[in-house]
Amino acid sequence: MTGVLTVGESMALVGSSRPEPLHAGATMTLGMGGAESNVAIGLRRLGTAATWVGRLGEDSAGDLVEKVLRGEGVTTRALRTRDVPTGLMLKEQRSTMETRIWYYRAGSAGSRLRPGDVTAQEVAEADLVHLTGITSALSASARDLVLDTARLAADAGVPVSFDLNYRSRLWDEASARALYARIVPQCAIVFGGLEEVEILIGPETDPVRAGHALRALGAGIAVVKLGAQGAVAVWDGGEVRVPAVPVQVRDTVGAGDAFVAGFLADHLAGNDVATALATAASVGAYACTGDGDWETLPTRADLRRLGGAEPVTR
Amino acid sequence: MTGVLTVGESMALVGSSRPEPLHAGATMTLGMGGAESNVAIGLRRLGTAATWVGRLGEDSAGDLVEKVLRGEGVTTRALRTRDVPTGLMLKEQRSTMETRIWYYRAGSAGSRLRPGDVTAQEVAEADLVHLTGITSALSASARDLVLDTARLAADAGVPVSFDLNYRSRLWDEASARALYARIVPQCAIVFGGLEEVEILIGPETDPVRAGHALRALGAGIAVVKLGAQGAVAVWDGGEVRVPAVPVQVRDTVGAGDAFVAGFLADHLAGNDVATALATAASVGAYACTGDGDWETLPTRADLRRLGGAEPVTR
Amino acid sequence: MTGVLTVGESMALVGSSRPEPLHAGATMTLGMGGAESNVAIGLRRLGTAATWVGRLGEDSAGDLVEKVLRGEGVTTRALRTRDVPTGLMLKEQRSTMETRIWYYRAGSAGSRLRPGDVTAQEVAEADLVHLTGITSALSASARDLVLDTARLAADAGVPVSFDLNYRSRLWDEASARALYARIVPQCAIVFGGLEEVEILIGPETDPVRAGHALRALGAGIAVVKLGAQGAVAVWDGGEVRVPAVPVQVRDTVGAGDAFVAGFLADHLAGNDVATALATAASVGAYACTGDGDWETLPTRADLRRLGGAEPVTR
Amino acid sequence: MTGVLTVGESMALVGSSRPEPLHAGATMTLGMGGAESNVAIGLRRLGTAATWVGRLGEDSAGDLVEKVLRGEGVTTRALRTRDVPTGLMLKEQRSTMETRIWYYRAGSAGSRLRPGDVTAQEVAEADLVHLTGITSALSASARDLVLDTARLAADAGVPVSFDLNYRSRLWDEASARALYARIVPQCAIVFGGLEEVEILIGPETDPVRAGHALRALGAGIAVVKLGAQGAVAVWDGGEVRVPAVPVQVRDTVGAGDAFVAGFLADHLAGNDVATALATAASVGAYACTGDGDWETLPTRADLRRLGGAEPVTR
Amino acid sequence: MTGVLTVGESMALVGSSRPEPLHAGATMTLGMGGAESNVAIGLRRLGTAATWVGRLGEDSAGDLVEKVLRGEGVTTRALRTRDVPTGLMLKEQRSTMETRIWYYRAGSAGSRLRPGDVTAQEVAEADLVHLTGITSALSASARDLVLDTARLAADAGVPVSFDLNYRSRLWDEASARALYARIVPQCAIVFGGLEEVEILIGPETDPVRAGHALRALGAGIAVVKLGAQGAVAVWDGGEVRVPAVPVQVRDTVGAGDAFVAGFLADHLAGNDVATALATAASVGAYACTGDGDWETLPTRADLRRLGGAEPVTR
Amino acid sequence: MTGVLTVGESMALVGSSRPEPLHAGATMTLGMGGAESNVAIGLRRLGTAATWVGRLGEDSAGDLVEKVLRGEGVTTRALRTRDVPTGLMLKEQRSTMETRIWYYRAGSAGSRLRPGDVTAQEVAEADLVHLTGITSALSASARDLVLDTARLAADAGVPVSFDLNYRSRLWDEASARALYARIVPQCAIVFGGLEEVEILIGPETDPVRAGHALRALGAGIAVVKLGAQGAVAVWDGGEVRVPAVPVQVRDTVGAGDAFVAGFLADHLAGNDVATALATAASVGAYACTGDGDWETLPTRADLRRLGGAEPVTR
Ligand SMILES: Nc1ncnc2c1ncn2[C@@H]1O[C@H](COP(=O)(O)OP(=O)(O)O)[C@@H](O)[C@H]1O
Ligand SMILES: Nc1ncnc2c1ncn2[C@@H]1O[C@H](COP(=O)(O)OP(=O)(O)O)[C@@H](O)[C@H]1O
Ligand SMILES: Nc1ncnc2c1ncn2[C@@H]1O[C@H](COP(=O)(O)OP(=O)(O)O)[C@@H](O)[C@H]1O
Ligand SMILES: Nc1ncnc2c1ncn2[C@@H]1O[C@H](COP(=O)(O)OP(=O)(O)O)[C@@H](O)[C@H]1O
Ligand SMILES: Nc1ncnc2c1ncn2[C@@H]1O[C@H](COP(=O)(O)OP(=O)(O)O)[C@@H](O)[C@H]1O
Ligand SMILES: Nc1ncnc2c1ncn2[C@@H]1O[C@H](COP(=O)(O)OP(=O)(O)O)[C@@H](O)[C@H]1O
Repeated sequence: MTGVLTVGESMALVGSSRPEPLHAGATMTLGMGGAESNVAIGLRRLGTAATWVGRLGEDSAGDLVEKVLRGEGVTTRALRTRDVPTGLMLKEQRSTMETRIWYYRAGSAGSRLRPGDVTAQEVAEADLVHLTGITSALSASARDLVLDTARLAADAGVPVSFDLNYRSRLWDEASARALYARIVPQCAIVFGGLEEVEILIGPETDPVRAGHALRALGAGIAVVKLGAQGAVAVWDGGEVRVPAVPVQVRDTVGAGDAFVAGFLADHLAGNDVATALATAASVGAYACTGDGDWETLPTRADLRRLGGAEPVTR
Repeated sequence: MTGVLTVGESMALVGSSRPEPLHAGATMTLGMGGAESNVAIGLRRLGTAATWVGRLGEDSAGDLVEKVLRGEGVTTRALRTRDVPTGLMLKEQRSTMETRIWYYRAGSAGSRLRPGDVTAQEVAEADLVHLTGITSALSASARDLVLDTARLAADAGVPVSFDLNYRSRLWDEASARALYARIVPQCAIVFGGLEEVEILIGPETDPVRAGHALRALGAGIAVVKLGAQGAVAVWDGGEVRVPAVPVQVRDTVGAGDAFVAGFLADHLAGNDVATALATAASVGAYACTGDGDWETLPTRADLRRLGGAEPVTR
Repeated sequence: MTGVLTVGESMALVGSSRPEPLHAGATMTLGMGGAESNVAIGLRRLGTAATWVGRLGEDSAGDLVEKVLRGEGVTTRALRTRDVPTGLMLKEQRSTMETRIWYYRAGSAGSRLRPGDVTAQEVAEADLVHLTGITSALSASARDLVLDTARLAADAGVPVSFDLNYRSRLWDEASARALYARIVPQCAIVFGGLEEVEILIGPETDPVRAGHALRALGAGIAVVKLGAQGAVAVWDGGEVRVPAVPVQVRDTVGAGDAFVAGFLADHLAGNDVATALATAASVGAYACTGDGDWETLPTRADLRRLGGAEPVTR
Repeated sequence: MTGVLTVGESMALVGSSRPEPLHAGATMTLGMGGAESNVAIGLRRLGTAATWVGRLGEDSAGDLVEKVLRGEGVTTRALRTRDVPTGLMLKEQRSTMETRIWYYRAGSAGSRLRPGDVTAQEVAEADLVHLTGITSALSASARDLVLDTARLAADAGVPVSFDLNYRSRLWDEASARALYARIVPQCAIVFGGLEEVEILIGPETDPVRAGHALRALGAGIAVVKLGAQGAVAVWDGGEVRVPAVPVQVRDTVGAGDAFVAGFLADHLAGNDVATALATAASVGAYACTGDGDWETLPTRADLRRLGGAEPVTR
Repeated sequence: MTGVLTVGESMALVGSSRPEPLHAGATMTLGMGGAESNVAIGLRRLGTAATWVGRLGEDSAGDLVEKVLRGEGVTTRALRTRDVPTGLMLKEQRSTMETRIWYYRAGSAGSRLRPGDVTAQEVAEADLVHLTGITSALSASARDLVLDTARLAADAGVPVSFDLNYRSRLWDEASARALYARIVPQCAIVFGGLEEVEILIGPETDPVRAGHALRALGAGIAVVKLGAQGAVAVWDGGEVRVPAVPVQVRDTVGAGDAFVAGFLADHLAGNDVATALATAASVGAYACTGDGDWETLPTRADLRRLGGAEPVTR
Repeated sequence: MTGVLTVGESMALVGSSRPEPLHAGATMTLGMGGAESNVAIGLRRLGTAATWVGRLGEDSAGDLVEKVLRGEGVTTRALRTRDVPTGLMLKEQRSTMETRIWYYRAGSAGSRLRPGDVTAQEVAEADLVHLTGITSALSASARDLVLDTARLAADAGVPVSFDLNYRSRLWDEASARALYARIVPQCAIVFGGLEEVEILIGPETDPVRAGHALRALGAGIAVVKLGAQGAVAVWDGGEVRVPAVPVQVRDTVGAGDAFVAGFLADHLAGNDVATALATAASVGAYACTGDGDWETLPTRADLRRLGGAEPVTR
């Protein structure tokens, strides 16, 4: 078995390095990101095998993405696609209170994802397939790939996890709702923020009730992420809530992906939902303690030190 | 009408980029600053027309100042002055608790400001003239220009706002008091910190009483800035206090100018004093959430997001 | 009269700051670029009035572009366009010998340029209209705008200059040839590298003959840029060649736009072709002596110092 | 009298400049560090004379260390040693919650310290000799030098202060205990964190009792550092506790050395233990308000401003 | 077959980013290096499979090295070794004319390399085994591993290539000579600079004669690297000399490893010696056109563009 | 004897780090400079004792200057002066071809230098006193100090060297000529560029004749610096010319001061004029091979490596 298989778009990421409006002469840091590959890296840091499949351009941005993923130990199958660029994100740290992200992924290699890009065999060999609402929003063919991959998983008896991950700059709520409605019933695990779940189930202020609603639609385990308020999980054996782990926050982008990685790693290791949720919260919190979407993701050893008293080891 | 007209000295600003004593090899960031142009930029960001008049050297620092102001949409009338340099500020972030600023403006172009530099016509066309105690402290001729400009405004029936802005490295309290005593009675709006107001009115611990004292001297609206304690306004219709808007602070330099811009923008838009004071407090708070004296100044759209829950837009 | 009017796409520019492959963690510099606005800035630095018309997104990249142009004194009419991003360029300094540029302008605001974006009145008020092959390659509507603007100029008796500026990542040679064939006959001045001219006229190794061929097609003055070999101009009064001005080269990107600005500035000032060509070569060479596509563009005073012996002024 | 004499290893320090795992392409800052020289610099900033003796390689890292110390006004006697490098520390700011330090001092010049490196005369001329557990852990010869220097001080009637400073990467607790047991009885002042004191006296949760235990072993004044909980001192005249001074913390590395410098400076100036402890806590707190192990150390003037209301001086 | 197998020490590399003496506050760049892994990366960039075996500490520097190698597609078998650090290099760009490197590898994980670390099976599966004089100089056990690996290769009929790579800071000429004398006779290919070859064969000013001398000692192909003078190869079929490829040099460190990678890639692809030597010279030259020991290594596509006229692709 | 005594103004130096016009957001490097202290540092690097006397403000810039000089081993007597700032230089690397420097020294501490600041005793104890035209141009009192110090030297039989060092931004040629005419006759050694010598002696294109002219006015040894053309010396024993040493130039600012340091170091060591001139040319050339006014100054060991073939030591 090959651990978690995921498919999605990973992009170059150009981010500002201090809180100020983007301006000519600003120093930016180049990196890469993508919700699915963030999860894959998070899994690898925690010791779980992970495979990422995606499309990249035949350009330096594509090289960069591929090198990072391989370097992190993610099994990487990048379909390098001619004459279309690797996507790009521009990230502005407008102030200490607000981050803005713009996508340059119209016509990108990632938007060319299409049925067939993930093979029945690699699905069958996986322990779990992780999909997200972002891939579904990239293009019609990418959405078909997501549905197709979920079907392949069903055929092979491989569980599917899905992160709603709504992105208003990529599609509208109606389109997202239609896709969510088709895929959630097929999922062993569904992750979402409360507002994202509301797109599917309608207005709801109570995360536990939201979890039950997702389950009523067919999801096995429903996990509602609540940012600085922690998270909730509902499954056939019960419901559980964890508070956020208190940390000195630096950058919350990527916390959700970290959380998912933490949950899946523990879940695949055979831990119960409450344990997996606690680990997820720790991983999500840890990811907030440094810059970057995935760079700060913790190892198990890092997690152990998180509660420790001494901030300096030497 | 041309919105707010202001006159003052803007300078190159060399600032350290992290909390440590200035040292050889330190990386510094070049920018520009000046209380009056900070206010002008703040006004523009909020959608109010603004004109800045000043003197700059025929040097690269002068080019820099002019380009920033023009870029921000401030109508800029820079009198480029031969054989004297554009002023400069050196800013040391000594620690997370203390910032130190040294001026290199002795004999600068800005100190050559003199009566005649602001014309009767541009005063008459303005909606409001904004002056500060800093310009008054630069040189005798600059002080005369301030007094002269206030007189031109009176002649033209244009309201004057004045920020006491005491700078101990430029003059002493006695000189400041003399100037304040002459100008406050002519002002529609006077801004000051409590300690600055005390220079004029003598010891006073209550900002509301301080505001009344300013009004007793002839000010129309008296606004007392209280840093992290918010602010107070006193006018013929009453008195109002606003607390500071809670934000994650990065750099408080420039908060006062931001606050003034917020107040004037709302005031000129016809809002009442309480509304203008609340906007001022938001703008002042926003300005603390990033580096730089004016860079972080918000637009109206930024202000709307300030209270929002979601720190990431994408 | 309002000097030179130009229309095109300006974009955010993310460039690496030293010769190495793009890699995660690389420090990049944010700026902006665009052939037409480079020319406009070049003209302003040389003292010639310039107007730039274009489309930008309602995003921070658009703000950045607009602020730079306004800061440089270019009259800027930016049509801010909803729901599409400002374009972006990614620039890799792969080694000391090679620079690579990738465009993220598919579906950008700039690609929405369309007839009507430039008004008959602003064309009629201009001294000269400057257009390029890049705008023509962005989209069908942008190409129509270029043709439309040339027609408006013809109607108003305003001379048109055109830079072939072939970009293989935007269109193919056949499409370019078709457009060039339509526009060159309407132009008072045509600029191009030898390889670009060959797209239109077929194989030709001699730049002077290439110039005559352009003139035979209807161009008034034909200027062939030859990089480190200088340039050639052919007009009804004769032909002239200038060698490149020897400089310590840092970054040649933007040299062509600088050259065009130099030529147009002198031409509009009433200088003869030989003088304008010499100025063009100086401006092009100067632009190679620093980083950035337009940042190093010289003023007339800078040009005077270019030949001087003493490299330090103090 | 020559103030405080100290001996130890100072090293080049390569530290990351933001919270993220060390990675290829990371920007690092070069500096220098060493517990004893940190104390010496701290003393100089507070106006107390200080001499540092140590061994450095004949390399650029050695030049760097020597220049910093001389620049700070520390009388520096660096024995430059052939064919062995100056030691080096690599410092990773793993997250906002954890810093990791690795030593490259195996076989370093500092590990060659040996009896004779400190002369009887320079000990005799000192007001106080400051030693640490780190030097004792470098090598057998370095440990002998520490013991030797303590003996020279005893012979000359010069008081000795000692900071336990346990470093698990350099030796084990048993070795440390053996050394502590020999040296503590000879010390006028002993500093240590509670965990370090426990190495010598066995389990103890109460810092005051820990202080008494140290005194029972022969220490004159026992000072227990408690990080963000402040500190405790026990001496023959009594016991006193100070809370930590509240500050905006940036980097706590070096706080202990700053604290020691504060205590010794006041102690040598003739202040009583309670006063010295309060100063120590202020200096320790101040040192946390900026980056770097010693860079942020305060002068007396800095300390005075620490409590002040106004965070900007100009 | 698994391509080239190599074994050696790879280290963290802390390098200055501009020509100036190392100084406190200098900005450094973190990376990694090691002659053998440089060659492995070079091979991968050129499309040849490569495996690197080595020892790394259980520290962040070890993580960094492993991630870079995996990212570059090198099959990496890193033996993570407890309680010893990953080695480190400190690189000072003293001026535009001189670079200085200091090693921190005494007692490093790499120095623990020992017989058994490379298995008979991985040797047998390789197409070629590449060894260097550096590994031989690290420690007695590392030298034994080199000899052992050469013997395993002989047993399995796998060709060995060896780069003399003399490092005066690691051992003396007598020790190097003894090792060279044992290993050269077993090598299919030997690489060395002229001065390095002289250590083995005695004074010799003619590189061709030096090549013949190496062959007389048993080497199959002798390749003498001559820096900016190019290189020479001697083999049983003849002798050939290539000049250096003219490039704009930025940093020559790593040119030798690049050259070796170029030679081996072509040699294993079945090209003749003259062709392989020409490729080696191109790869060595390309490696000089950017910062970093291996970062600038070219792909085959990069090499094709090396001779091209147009320095900008877009 | 205390080696070379010099007096002058040293300032903070804010310099851009790459060739581009000064602009908002530019990254600058903080350092310090001053012709006299550059010479003092150069002497120390070469092993000659040096004392610098000057005035600095009671500010962080003054601390910085003092720490650098002490760090470099220069005996530093800084008169810290209340209420006036330490001077500052702003340095723009406008392009690869031009550097511009602006002074912020009007009313600086350095301009307060006055007779009495250098004591008769420290002059008498010196081996040589080095003065420059810059100090003479700062203010009337500074000029008087220069004349006074020269007189004290004459009284004590201590030789004086003088560098004409004309700065057009500080005074005009007539004032400089008057001062030069008074001081040159008292000097054992006079240094100047050809254009500077012409201020005193009138038009002259031949540097040897210029040297003779200086000697005719009373100078002992006349040394004419010729930039990239080398230098000439004329003395009672003859005349000698040296070409410039070929180096890869990075920044020529400070070459003249380096040259003077090289000459004085050799001269005081008893070498003849031709030897001293050759050393001066090497030191001047070395100083061009890195950034910074004094940072790249060489040691004797550095000079030995200058001619060497191998650019990497390890
Ligand atoms: N400020 C925070 N402090 C601690 N943990 C946090 C914080 N923000 C997020 N987390 C953790 O990460 C998880 C995911 O974060 P959230 O912001 O809800 O996800 P998303 O990135 O998908 O919006 C949360 O459920 C929580 O456990
Ligand atoms: N730490 C802060 N948090 C929130 N708002 C602040 C803070 N500091 C200042 N402000 C806002 O900015 C206004 C002006 O700041 P203040 O420091 O009083 O001005 P000045 O810069 O003139 O000293 C305050 O009245 C307050 O509204
Ligand atoms: N290396 C150089 N040295 C001096 N001048 C140059 C150099 N490169 C370009 N120029 C000048 O700039 C002009 C335009 O450069 P070129 O490279 O031909 O344009 P483009 O950027 O359009 O390809 C040239 O004609 C020449 O005058
Ligand atoms: N977070 C903090 N806030 C304020 N003061 C601190 C803080 N951390 C340390 N200090 C001060 O510095 C002293 C030494 O710090 P500590 O961490 O105990 O030393 P060490 O560096 O030796 O472990 C403490 O006793 C306290 O006075
Ligand atoms: N300055 C240079 N210009 C072009 N090619 C070079 C240059 N320096 C080295 N090379 C190429 O790289 C090869 C190896 O460089 P060399 O310096 O001899 O190796 P090493 O790094 O082992 O000392 C040379 O044989 C040459 O082909
Ligand atoms: N480009 C250069 N290459 C080599 N040596 C140089 C170079 N520029 C200056 N020098 C050396 O430094 C000396 C002083 O430089 P110069 O420019 O004449 O002084 P100044 O800085 O006073 O104008 C010259 O005489 C020469 O020996």
